[in-house]
Amino acid sequence: MAVKPAIPKGTRDFLPAQAAKRQYIFDTLKKHFESYGYKPIETPAMELLQTLTGKYGEEGDKLIFKILNSGDFLSKIPPETLSTISSNELSFRICEKALRYDLTVPFARFVVQHRNEITLPFKRYQIQPVWRADRPQKGRYREFYQCDIDSIGSNSLLNEAELIAIMNNVFQDLQIPVTIRINNRKILSGICETAGVSKHFKSITIAIDKLDKIGIEKVKEEIISLGIDTHATDFILQFFEENADNKAKIQLVKEKLKGETAEKGIAELTEIMEFCETQQIDNVKIDFTLARGLDYYTGAIFEVTTPLFNSSICGGGRYDDLTGIFGWEGISGVGVSFGADRIYDVMEENNLFPENAEKNTLVLWINFGKEEVSYIFPIAQKLRNEGIITEVYPDNVKLKKQLKYADTNRIQWVAMCGSEEMKNETVTFKNLKTGTQHTVKISESVEFIKSQK
Amino acid sequence: MAVKPAIPKGTRDFLPAQAAKRQYIFDTLKKHFESYGYKPIETPAMELLQTLTGKYGEEGDKLIFKILNSGDFLSKIPPETLSTISSNELSFRICEKALRYDLTVPFARFVVQHRNEITLPFKRYQIQPVWRADRPQKGRYREFYQCDIDSIGSNSLLNEAELIAIMNNVFQDLQIPVTIRINNRKILSGICETAGVSKHFKSITIAIDKLDKIGIEKVKEEIISLGIDTHATDFILQFFEENADNKAKIQLVKEKLKGETAEKGIAELTEIMEFCETQQIDNVKIDFTLARGLDYYTGAIFEVTTPLFNSSICGGGRYDDLTGIFGWEGISGVGVSFGADRIYDVMEENNLFPENAEKNTLVLWINFGKEEVSYIFPIAQKLRNEGIITEVYPDNVKLKKQLKYADTNRIQWVAMCGSEEMKNETVTFKNLKTGTQHTVKISESVEFIKSQK
Repeated sequence: MAVKPAIPKGTRDFLPAQAAKRQYIFDTLKKHFESYGYKPIETPAMELLQTLTGKYGEEGDKLIFKILNSGDFLSKIPPETLSTISSNELSFRICEKALRYDLTVPFARFVVQHRNEITLPFKRYQIQPVWRADRPQKGRYREFYQCDIDSIGSNSLLNEAELIAIMNNVFQDLQIPVTIRINNRKILSGICETAGVSKHFKSITIAIDKLDKIGIEKVKEEIISLGIDTHATDFILQFFEENADNKAKIQLVKEKLKGETAEKGIAELTEIMEFCETQQIDNVKIDFTLARGLDYYTGAIFEVTTPLFNSSICGGGRYDDLTGIFGWEGISGVGVSFGADRIYDVMEENNLFPENAEKNTLVLWINFGKEEVSYIFPIAQKLRNEGIITEVYPDNVKLKKQLKYADTNRIQWVAMCGSEEMKNETVTFKNLKTGTQHTVKISESVEFIKSQK
Repeated sequence: MAVKPAIPKGTRDFLPAQAAKRQYIFDTLKKHFESYGYKPIETPAMELLQTLTGKYGEEGDKLIFKILNSGDFLSKIPPETLSTISSNELSFRICEKALRYDLTVPFARFVVQHRNEITLPFKRYQIQPVWRADRPQKGRYREFYQCDIDSIGSNSLLNEAELIAIMNNVFQDLQIPVTIRINNRKILSGICETAGVSKHFKSITIAIDKLDKIGIEKVKEEIISLGIDTHATDFILQFFEENADNKAKIQLVKEKLKGETAEKGIAELTEIMEFCETQQIDNVKIDFTLARGLDYYTGAIFEVTTPLFNSSICGGGRYDDLTGIFGWEGISGVGVSFGADRIYDVMEENNLFPENAEKNTLVLWINFGKEEVSYIFPIAQKLRNEGIITEVYPDNVKLKKQLKYADTNRIQWVAMCGSEEMKNETVTFKNLKTGTQHTVKISESVEFIKSQK
């Protein structure tokens, strides 16, 4: 009996139009990454389970797809153990590999494993799929691509500046209007430090992160409920006013914050903002509420938003110890990750893909029989050599059917060269968009199509 | 304690130089595939286990990587079952997904699942990794890329001809000298039929497949040991003489073979060879010993070999029922698969990669401090906009260290613009290959580097 064709929940097939448009996004990212000297690397889809577990928190660990050991994986487990063991315990005894959950941990592993083959500063990009056993829902998939770019082994803020320039270039190229939001973990620490509530740092940032959704009054309630007095709470909340501009924000933290951490954070942020100013990058916005992945970031934090989409489409930051978990301490890095699926959705919904992103066939040669095809095949090849996508219809069937194929596949030109045309050494090109026909010398086919493009 | 960085056996990391060269191969393949109107598709890494099992034979099934169900996968299995169940049986109760083993079965599944969204003839290419739990050994990996190109829904031999043209174009472009070997399953059937030993068809082709390795005498012994008499054996073996040319081979089968199947096979092969002749493709060689994947192919069989490598680097053929297993009968197709890893090895060992395959940085701007960097950053960007890969060294460290970075990364030009040069509005370019220096107006930087390329 035939198997019903289906794919696992939360995964996707990509039809030609979608695959080509996704490729357009990847190609655009690559072009910009490469122009700055970032180099491609690739890591395997499967990592050793021990490489991944314990890196994403308890919730994250549950979302790692484990790969069953091949062969007789039960042979070393006594039956009495089997009857009492939990699913979770058993999984670690019958699986030693898992699908990567992100590109960051594999990159850290890669850097340490190949430390003798790379030189610092090391700038890499990586565009590969990752897998998460998340509950599938709209816009959230179990297999999706991450597009990461990182520079490690240099503390210079020029790296941050360069990433801002790259994000800016990429989204300009993709025609997505964006705001690049920036914050600094050290300023957040400084706010709590100056307010004398450092021990509540994490809870406070979690509360502030919700500001967008629940509003300032609710955030205030939440902070007070941590046992922080109104005075300190008001002190903290003054930094999160939306309407202040970048200069006013920097002025405010300079005036109000004390301590080494805050000073360092302010100096870092100021230098980056100065750079943006001299380079006339004017869509960077300081946003002290930005607290993504705070356990992880130690300096700058980035997030890119667009009025065309309701969540961020790119983000990242500076982390001071990427590779410590694999035994190489103190390698600082900074990087951002582009959300290809979200970028795709934004572009699709707003018709931002250029017409040629799909790489449609431009010319279809009608098949009038074996002899005719042999005759025109080298001409078709010449068109291809000029970068013109060209098909020869494979079957000698009714013209109507061949034209229908051209129509369905949105092919602009059909070329007709039957026995009569062969005798005259001509070919008739018909433009299916306009209906106009042109008969030209077959030797001039390439020039004709090129002149019409 | 730090985790020792390692990856699963049989998988690989790709360092920048390798990743870029692999990308060069994929880009070359894509360029040719697309120029003929083949469209990209993508399928998920994981398929439902039932989609894959039973499609690759018993041995193949063992090599499928299964993915453990997430959550409490044991909950529905009674403890008494657990203590008696075999690893194999259990695997089907705790895994419903698996990593794809090739791109053909997923393609068949794709075509049937999306039959209402595609039009026939449908020409697709697919470049994605596949996974096999094979014993890792030199040149054999557990994760590797397949690059498949297929045309389905048309019986025309022009599809076969086009694939030959594409293989020819690709390998010419990659500068790998190749022979495209061709056979036809129907001729092999015809040989056995005419000899009156059809029921031994499979065993005979298995024996003949070894001709290369064990020689004609051993093959003869093997065929005789099947219970076939010397007369029939000699009849069979006459078709497998290496030294005959294409015309002689066609002549021979035309003279000696009888029956409808043989006639059809000969007509198909003749038509394809005539096409190659009119298109002046002269590296196609008829090879009746070719029997790859015979269970599968029904017409033409292809295999591409090169004197630079000891096994084939590309192969495929015509199959008459790709999609039947998923309930859509009678869709004929023809396709070939390019072995990216083998192509990589051939090119690497023979220095066939072009110099620019790696996309090295061309210009490194020395970092003389914050002000200088701000000054030159827009110039660096102008170079990038012209397609010139340009880096600015991120840290203001000793010149020696920055030059060492350029050297290690094989960067050809360093650009120096310190306070003195800023005053004069000049920049000094030093060619690290030749040691020559050129001081030019900073506004002429782009023109200078472009003129030197």
